[in-house]
Formats: sequence, C-alpha cells, structure tokens
Amino acid sequence: MGDARLVDRLRDALGPEAVLTDTDVTAGYARDRMPLAPAGTPLAVVLPSDTDGVRAVVRACAAAGVPVVPRGAGSGLTGAANAVDGCVVLVTTKLDRIVDVDPANRLAVVQPGVVTRRLRDAVAEHGLFYPPDPSSYEWCTVGGNLATNAGGLCCVKYGVTADFVLGLEVVLADGSVLRTGRRTVKGVAGYDLTRLFVGSEGTLGVITEATLALRPLPHAPATLVAAFPSAVGAGDAVSRIVRAGLVPSLMEIMDATTVGAVQRHLRTDLGTGSDDGTLLLCRSDAGTAANAELAEIERHCAAAGATLVHHTDDPAEGELLMRARRVVHGALEELGTCLTDDVCVPRTRIAELITGCERIAAEVGLTVAVVGHAGDGNMHPTVIFDAADDGEFDRARRAFDAVLELGLALGGTVTGEHGIGKFKQEWLHAELGPVGLDVHRRIRRALDPADLFNPGSMFAPKAASQQGEEAEYGPGRHTQ
Amino acid sequence: MGDARLVDRLRDALGPEAVLTDTDVTAGYARDRMPLAPAGTPLAVVLPSDTDGVRAVVRACAAAGVPVVPRGAGSGLTGAANAVDGCVVLVTTKLDRIVDVDPANRLAVVQPGVVTRRLRDAVAEHGLFYPPDPSSYEWCTVGGNLATNAGGLCCVKYGVTADFVLGLEVVLADGSVLRTGRRTVKGVAGYDLTRLFVGSEGTLGVITEATLALRPLPHAPATLVAAFPSAVGAGDAVSRIVRAGLVPSLMEIMDATTVGAVQRHLRTDLGTGSDDGTLLLCRSDAGTAANAELAEIERHCAAAGATLVHHTDDPAEGELLMRARRVVHGALEELGTCLTDDVCVPRTRIAELITGCERIAAEVGLTVAVVGHAGDGNMHPTVIFDAADDGEFDRARRAFDAVLELGLALGGTVTGEHGIGKFKQEWLHAELGPVGLDVHRRIRRALDPADLFNPGSMFAPKAASQQGEEAEYGPGRHTQ
Repeated sequence: MGDARLVDRLRDALGPEAVLTDTDVTAGYARDRMPLAPAGTPLAVVLPSDTDGVRAVVRACAAAGVPVVPRGAGSGLTGAANAVDGCVVLVTTKLDRIVDVDPANRLAVVQPGVVTRRLRDAVAEHGLFYPPDPSSYEWCTVGGNLATNAGGLCCVKYGVTADFVLGLEVVLADGSVLRTGRRTVKGVAGYDLTRLFVGSEGTLGVITEATLALRPLPHAPATLVAAFPSAVGAGDAVSRIVRAGLVPSLMEIMDATTVGAVQRHLRTDLGTGSDDGTLLLCRSDAGTAANAELAEIERHCAAAGATLVHHTDDPAEGELLMRARRVVHGALEELGTCLTDDVCVPRTRIAELITGCERIAAEVGLTVAVVGHAGDGNMHPTVIFDAADDGEFDRARRAFDAVLELGLALGGTVTGEHGIGKFKQEWLHAELGPVGLDVHRRIRRALDPADLFNPGSMFAPKAASQQGEEAEYGPGRHTQ
Repeated sequence: MGDARLVDRLRDALGPEAVLTDTDVTAGYARDRMPLAPAGTPLAVVLPSDTDGVRAVVRACAAAGVPVVPRGAGSGLTGAANAVDGCVVLVTTKLDRIVDVDPANRLAVVQPGVVTRRLRDAVAEHGLFYPPDPSSYEWCTVGGNLATNAGGLCCVKYGVTADFVLGLEVVLADGSVLRTGRRTVKGVAGYDLTRLFVGSEGTLGVITEATLALRPLPHAPATLVAAFPSAVGAGDAVSRIVRAGLVPSLMEIMDATTVGAVQRHLRTDLGTGSDDGTLLLCRSDAGTAANAELAEIERHCAAAGATLVHHTDDPAEGELLMRARRVVHGALEELGTCLTDDVCVPRTRIAELITGCERIAAEVGLTVAVVGHAGDGNMHPTVIFDAADDGEFDRARRAFDAVLELGLALGGTVTGEHGIGKFKQEWLHAELGPVGLDVHRRIRRALDPADLFNPGSMFAPKAASQQGEEAEYGPGRHTQ
C-alpha cells in the first residue's frame, strides 16, 4: 500500500479531522520533552476516539508495513513518544472518558487520554485517592503514565503507576483486542500480562482502557524541612529514617547546587544559613500520628548533623516549605538548558551519587544539580548547558553518561521512572546483559513480530541512522 | 539420550544422594495437596543445592527431551507441582540460604527453598516484616510462593507475594541464567520480567534466587469479631468498611456452615447466639490508631445488622478470637474429605457468592462451607464429600465447577491466590478468552519452545490422557 492510500484509508476509518498530515501541525506531535533524543518526520498523526478507531489504525498500518508510534500528551523525558521517519503517530488524547468510578470496590475504569490530574480530582470527590503523581500530572495522561510506569513524589509510601493497575484493554499488532487482569483486588489466573504491558513504552500494543485500584484519601500532610552542611549528612539521615522503619508520604532531597539556584530564584534564604547546604523535605499523611512521625524524623535528622530542622502541621506553612521543591525546575532553567537524568540507587548510596555528580560536574566543566526522591533512591541529576554551543552539548551528554555509569556502579538502575525510550537503549542493554536482552527481544517478537509498534524505542535500532536527525547522540560511550 | 543415561548424567552433576529414583521415595514428590489433580510417575526426583546444579539438570533434561517439573515443599492446591509421567521433578528445598538481609535498604536476598516462616522470623530480628502469609507458611517455601504468587491473610492491607519481589535469578529452558529486576525500590528499565515469572507456576523457568522488599514490623494487632444473622448482613458490613476507606490488616469472613462446624469442633458458642450465623473477624495493626479504626468498623458492623460486635487490644484475647478462624480446616476435615476452591469476586459481591454456594450445596446434595479473605473478595468455598464414594466424588467436582462459574458471573476470577496448575486449565482458558490464551501461548513458546517446564500445567494438555491417572477429572463441563 502506498503512503497516500494509507492516509486515505485512515481518513475513511476515523474521519478526515482525526488524520493530520500538514507538516507544520504534525511537527507538534513528533517529540516529547527530551531535547537530545532523535525524532523523525511522521507520515501522519491520527487521533482516534475509541478502541475501534485504534484497531482500524493498527490494521491499516500493519497492512501497509508502516510503523505506529503511540503517544499521550508528550510529557515523557526519553523520546519514547518521538516519531520515526514515515510512521503514523497514534495520539490517545481523544480517548478521554472516565468510564466508571466504583467507590464500593475502590476502583476506576478510564481511557488512556484522561489527564492524570483530572482522574485524581474525579476520584477525590468520592473520598478516594489515585496516588501516581509525576511532576507533569497537571497535563500528562494516564495512558502515558501506564506506558512508562510513571512515578512521582508519592512513590516512597504509595508505589508507582503499576501498583495501581488491575487490568488493561490493549490493541495488539494484529488488531485484536486483549483484555488483561480483572476487577477484583487479587487474581493469579495466568501470567501477569498487565504488568508486562505497563512500562513497555508502546512497544507491545496500544492501551485503550485501564482498570485502576484506588486508595482511601489520606489526611492532609504535615511537613518537615531539614538543612544539612553536606550531602553526606542528608544521606545519613535518609538511611537512619529508612532503618528506623519510618515511611513518610514524601521524602525529597535537594543538593547544594539546587538549593543555591532556588535561593537565588526565590530571593530568600531557605534557612540553610549559607549560600547552599543540602535540604531534606519530608511529609507525613498519617493523620493523628503525623506529628509523632515527623518528630521522630526530626530526631534522626538532628543525629545526622542537621543545622536546622523544623516541622509543621499547618497546611499553609507546609505549602510554603514545599515551594522550594516545586520551583526547582524553573530555578534551574534560569541557568541554561536542562538535561534531566533519571537514575535510581539503593537508599544507602544517595550521598555517594550526589558527591559523584559534583565530581562529574567538575570534570566536564558544567553545572550538575541533583534533586531526587530520597525515599526510594530515585535521583534526578540535571546537567545545565548551553544548547547553542556544540562543545557544551557534547560535554552535557558526557556528564549524562557518566551519571548513569555511576548509578550502575552503585548497584542502581539506569532509570527509576522515566524509562528508556529512544535515548537510553544501549544503557538498557548494559543493565540487562545479553540474556536479559535476548528475553526482551523474544517477548517483543512473540507479540509484535513485524516490529510495528514504536520501533527504535527501548531496543537499539539496527542502524542508528534510520531513526532520525539526531541519532548520532545515541549513548554507548560507557557501555560494553 | 535414554532414561538410564539421563539419570547417570544427573548423578554425575549433582552427586548420587541428590538424585532419587526409588519409586517408593519419588512418590512422595509426585503430588501437592490438591486431591483431584492428575499426577504421573516421575523418572527421577532431583534436589540440587545451587544454581549450577539447577542449570545442569535443565541442560541434561533439555538434551534428553525429558520434562522438568519444578517444586518446592508441595503445599500447593492446584497440582501445579504434580509430576507428569517420565519427568524429572526438580525440588528446590536444598537451595535454602538466606543470602542477605539488608535493613538499611529494607530488602532480603533468598534462595527459593527457604521456608516462608523462617524468612519472616529472620527479618523480624531486624525489626522488619515480610508480609506474605499463605496458611501453609509454617512449611511452604518462598520459591513455591513466588511460583504461585501466593497470598494469605495479610493481603487486604499489604498485598500478595508479587508486591514484595524486586528481582529474580531464573534458570531458563536453555540453561542460561536470567537476572531480572534490581535492588533499588524503583526501576523501569525494560519489561517487567520479574512479574512475568512470579505466578508463572514453573512454566517459564526455575527461580533460583529472589530479592525481596521488606516493610517495617507493624504494631501488635487489635482484634474485632462481629456476628451477623446472615451472609447478606456481613457482606453489607464489608462493603461499608471498604467504602469508608478503612484498611484493616486482616478481614476474614466465615459463613454459617463454617461457624457451625467450628462451634461443634471447639464445643463452644462463638457468641453468635445460635447454631450458626456469619462471622466477620478484623484486625488493625495501626498502633495508637488501632482502637479508633476498630471502633469505626464496629459502627459499620452494627449498622449492617450485627447481633454481636466486640473488639479488644489485649493480644491474648485477640488470639482467642482468631482461634475460630485458625481451626476452620481441622473442623471441616471432621466432616469428610475437603475440596477447597479459590475464587475471587469484587468485594461488593461476597454475599452473593456465599448465598450462591448455599444454593449449589443444596443442588448437589453436599456440604459447602465458605471461609474467605473478605477484605479482598478472595473466597475459599470448601466442598465436603466422601472420597470413597464415586457418586460423591463426581458431585464434588460438579459443585467445584459451579462455584467457579458463579465467581466468573459475579465479575470475579477463577483464582485469587492458588493458581491454575493441572486442575483449572480450562477455566483459565474460559477466563482469558481466545486472544488472552493466544498471548499466553506465544510468551510460553518464546521462552520455552520445547515445552520443557511443567508441561500440562496452566495450559490444557493436547491429549488429557498424557497427563496421568486422573486426567478424566479435568474441568470443562461449564466452559465454552
């Protein structure tokens, strides 16, 4: 089938308004938020509004041998949603119905295009809580969260997206519709296909519906802030808190570089008593037990050498304390182009990761600011560089690779919540090893033998040059 | 390779004491605890003591074309660990090291042969908690729990075995060693292979090591008992408790038949004020908040028509109240041979499942007693029959099938925690549907193309007669 005939067939199936081919328009759907990942030029962008529409797209593309790149709102940070040349980008944002909220069974059934914030608000009206809260939750979609197994600030206590998925509806590469999982709390009938699709980054099928478990709405949180002279003290505090069996509902760390940027951005001293210092922010939503929990955390912070610790159960004051964390991205963007990495280390190795990033920053001659979810060891070092300067671009990439190498050396993983996409494939290969990679490829081949879905994502392309204009920035320097 | 040569090769690899061929001895390894599932006669039973031993067995059997049936302690209830004729039963109980307990990162690394209770005790010494507590936890092994994704009483608050698995080491069908997952709390590098192997019932590989997440040790629980005139009242109480957002650490239901049997067994009135009545048992381990939580549950029970509600934070009195639940199996065994089913329904449909079981009992003319994990809808109807009477045997099977049919009709699944094994394959097929089954088969084929591991489990055998003496009892009557 020729390209024009495929576009005609897509228009017949979805209606002309749901098929975009104007390159000025389709360019807006060709990339996510990772500046360094390669992106190609799509043949068309389609916006089906129901499962049958998705099936029609998949069948038409399969018949034409044209790749399908599924995509939500495009808030990803790995290029997983980036187009490849000549593909059809399948946007799920029009599948945006909240099909059911069932308070008695504490679950919701939603289509993938529902914005995460909208789902959280809708279930909160029933006194229920959908915890996953990636920082883009105001505009990212549940479908993207499912495809990447998104995390967020809540994970330390509540877990990641996958922990809330009971079942899925998925359109497979042959256009058939698979239903996985169940509406019950427990179930062990067969393989856990639900978990196989969650986090598979659109390489195995297109998720068209999800049944999600909900939790009771927690109490309003109490908040603690602690300042340390160095990352070592803050890391020690995290280890003490974890070892004591405490599970705060949030535990975020900001390194000295980040704290300095935020203090300049807000034109205020955050109480660190210096230009920098490392901050730890904790919250407890344990209701009547929250103050006692934070008082215990306060003791551990003091024992680890905190120069300041303060906690409050006043919601307004708590929000003020949290503001330092919320403005991090804006504060860092004032310094240059941000390349945000995602590496997860054992909770005892956080200080080593932060001091290692200081060393890497000095080596490459760029600023590296570390902020992260200390409660689960998921760190986000941000490399700040001048994108207009080729030399800085290369050095940023080198810093990024060095951070991942360090993360693996500390017993960590190359991604805690962002995923692999079209950017970290060779790092994935390094982490999995040959047997793990072979098993991945066998599963991929079993479900998508023609490489229809999201080719070049997760797995390294056979020839990098097939994958778009920036493929030369693919990783690999530090892998073996 | 002939059978004798294979046995020689196994003896060379493992040492003669680790290879059993005496049929009087091997018979003890040919079955789990499900009386109705088929079991064949193994060629040999092997007990390797390390990963290399497992690899040697898998390679030798693959070369000889002889199936491998992995097995732990044999506490399963579906025949998943049952031998097939001429197979090698691979027992993992000698791989029984607790390799590491890491309190600072709140994880443990264990071999599959570790008895679940031993792991719980070992981590409790560090103030940590490994929640999964299948009723056989005194003697079942972690490996069997992983293979079946075992549940227990803790699930309502803490989840199932899979929720605590960070990573696995698995020997694949070609003898290679796959490492999945990580030691970090979070990680999204590649497909979730860990979850694919957990609950796969030994059909994809042999688990030789697991990295398990631990939790802080909870407070000693407070306990509540409530008696209702009928299942409808108790079911209503469960719905009210769930809808109110309460998460007790245990919530068990016992129907009137069970309560009657337990009262006769203990020669005491459980406070139901009658011969029967439905009991609800709840616990809270929320520490200082436990009494308030149970007081709220008490109010919901009263509103749902409870004739008696009582709660206590005295540990000894709490254990006395729990005794009624703990003796259920012994009490029912006094009535005849027990066939314990496992069906999971939405939490709002529990009363319908119990009253449906009363109807099924009347229709087949046998006793059916229902006890279950009300907090997650996972019910265990037990059919009581005379195994020596062929007619009763058939009727028991009919009752079992009718319960599963009812469970599916109520929006449930045919297994909440026991699995499929060599007994519920056709029910699995009915639940999955043709697309789901096809995806299962494709994954199985991708990882084990020669059908080496546990053939006849999970998937219906092509010819039932290959699977041993009792294959004629395979299900199917109610499936389409």
